[in-house]
Amino acid sequence: MALAKEEATDVLSSLQSVCTRHGLETMSAKLAELASLVQWDMQEIAKALAELPQRSGLVHRSARHLVDLGGKRLRPICVALASKVGSGFDEKCRDLAVAVELVHCATLLHDDVIDHGDRRRGSPTARSLYGNAASIFAGDWLLIEALKRVRATKVPDTLERLLDIIDEMIAAESLQLEGRGRLELDPDRYFRVVEGKTAALFRWAMFAGGRGGGLDLEQCRALERFGAHLGIAFQLVDDLLDYAGDAEVTGKVPFADLREGKATYPLIVAVERDPDLLGELSALVERPDEQPEARFTAVRDRIESTGALTRCHALALEHANQAQAALSGLPPGPAVEALGTVAETTVNREL
Amino acid sequence: MALAKEEATDVLSSLQSVCTRHGLETMSAKLAELASLVQWDMQEIAKALAELPQRSGLVHRSARHLVDLGGKRLRPICVALASKVGSGFDEKCRDLAVAVELVHCATLLHDDVIDHGDRRRGSPTARSLYGNAASIFAGDWLLIEALKRVRATKVPDTLERLLDIIDEMIAAESLQLEGRGRLELDPDRYFRVVEGKTAALFRWAMFAGGRGGGLDLEQCRALERFGAHLGIAFQLVDDLLDYAGDAEVTGKVPFADLREGKATYPLIVAVERDPDLLGELSALVERPDEQPEARFTAVRDRIESTGALTRCHALALEHANQAQAALSGLPPGPAVEALGTVAETTVNREL
Repeated sequence: MALAKEEATDVLSSLQSVCTRHGLETMSAKLAELASLVQWDMQEIAKALAELPQRSGLVHRSARHLVDLGGKRLRPICVALASKVGSGFDEKCRDLAVAVELVHCATLLHDDVIDHGDRRRGSPTARSLYGNAASIFAGDWLLIEALKRVRATKVPDTLERLLDIIDEMIAAESLQLEGRGRLELDPDRYFRVVEGKTAALFRWAMFAGGRGGGLDLEQCRALERFGAHLGIAFQLVDDLLDYAGDAEVTGKVPFADLREGKATYPLIVAVERDPDLLGELSALVERPDEQPEARFTAVRDRIESTGALTRCHALALEHANQAQAALSGLPPGPAVEALGTVAETTVNREL
Repeated sequence: MALAKEEATDVLSSLQSVCTRHGLETMSAKLAELASLVQWDMQEIAKALAELPQRSGLVHRSARHLVDLGGKRLRPICVALASKVGSGFDEKCRDLAVAVELVHCATLLHDDVIDHGDRRRGSPTARSLYGNAASIFAGDWLLIEALKRVRATKVPDTLERLLDIIDEMIAAESLQLEGRGRLELDPDRYFRVVEGKTAALFRWAMFAGGRGGGLDLEQCRALERFGAHLGIAFQLVDDLLDYAGDAEVTGKVPFADLREGKATYPLIVAVERDPDLLGELSALVERPDEQPEARFTAVRDRIESTGALTRCHALALEHANQAQAALSGLPPGPAVEALGTVAETTVNREL
């Protein structure tokens, strides 16, 4: 329990140290401000997450395993900050923040079953500890828990909107499934998947936080635009970390996306610029387990030499800027400042 | 589409012909009354189910496949009849009835993934046509669709109650998972699983229909008691059909539960009465695919010789009677009569 609490503030301080290491002193100061602004809220959220109904069943242990691993809790941070753009963070906002994290965890539980994932957040996945069946029901359970909480807050429009957002998420999963195993390198399809799978829930986090803080629908729409761009930026950096990340820091298997033949943005750009790469990639993806590690590194270098990684980062930056631009009409103050910091950090993160 | 519509009334007429065949003339007349009472409603429900949002994705095709297979639609019938105990069936009740069927289908989609089921309602399962991943998301989608519809009806208490019921269903799935592969023959555990997995959704169907028909909470509680007993009776007969059913009629693999080592009620009673049976069963369950068909038939005969099938049917009858008794305080009329018929038919069904 204490672990989850520390984890939440830990992320901020680890991001902060990353920035200091890189000599980004201004960024570090901004992060300290962000941390002090949401520290209490994040502790309340962590406490509520640690107090999920205690049941001894396999399904509930499976869900707890993932939730207790903590993670970045970026979506709850979005809820907290969005609420502070309005009248501030209260119990209802806490419950909305908990709900967004539970929905996120529910999708991870189902995703790990579908992708046969063995590692998550530097630990074994719930499915590898408790089995696929328990993870499927654990996802169902967290989804229902999330909806119950949102319902109980009675914050206007948040429940309908969440149901619609989950619908969008499932449609994106469906789209992604269809491209599976085929190395589908269509940018249009890529962005439709990202908008549904990643950006949609960020959008809801911002909308719900804003509504919880009493903002009107127009202000909430601006927050949603922030969430949409933040989500895309976040995913682009996630894609990038598959090629450029330090596995020790990210807790992920290196080249995991590449091994699975996932159409990440760097891959799409690289093949656009160097079409011959496609043959090489297809061979890798068809029998990833039979390939020597050096072949992955060679492909990675070839991708980098096309400038695809740089282009991916530039696009992430663009979306982070658009996210910030979306805030321009909102009442200025520390919360809007901090949201700007979130956007900046997202594109400079190393995990 | 037309298919689903026919199926719904087909079930009533097929049940009816079963009864006629057995010389139960009175029962046949009662069923004709029941059929004429809900025929229009069931057509409306079938129409709405056929008009689920049309999307081309793998996930949505997977969901449609199961929904279009039709099935008995007993839960929607419960909603329709419960509403008619009150002010009657309207659009809202139709949506509640559609929702209960969608939740039921969602659980079947996830169950088939977990049990590696290949056949369902006499056809290949969605997962064997579209894959496990699509079926997992298809279940998620139907759940969300159901919740959206219930939410939109604004019928008091139905959404909270449904969220609680799904919670109970998941807890029961968890309990069942823990007993898997171990031939867990504890009657107490068995009934806890049945109450959660089967009876809970029947309870909600009755509650929601009653609420939709404007009945007060006390009247709805009586309807819920009916649903709880009906659900248990239904499951007991389902268990029985694994041993006694005609595979041509039920569309199920014979002895499927036995092969999976599922703790069905006949098995629990048989081992209580003939403890030596346990060794024989364990051997069967450990390597079901290596066993000659004759061995299953021999075990089936031995189970029957303990009187376990008769006992199971007697208990189903008891619950059907308790279901009928629960109706005693409700305003008498054709709907209450028809619910009585549903309870009677449930214990006399052959599919």
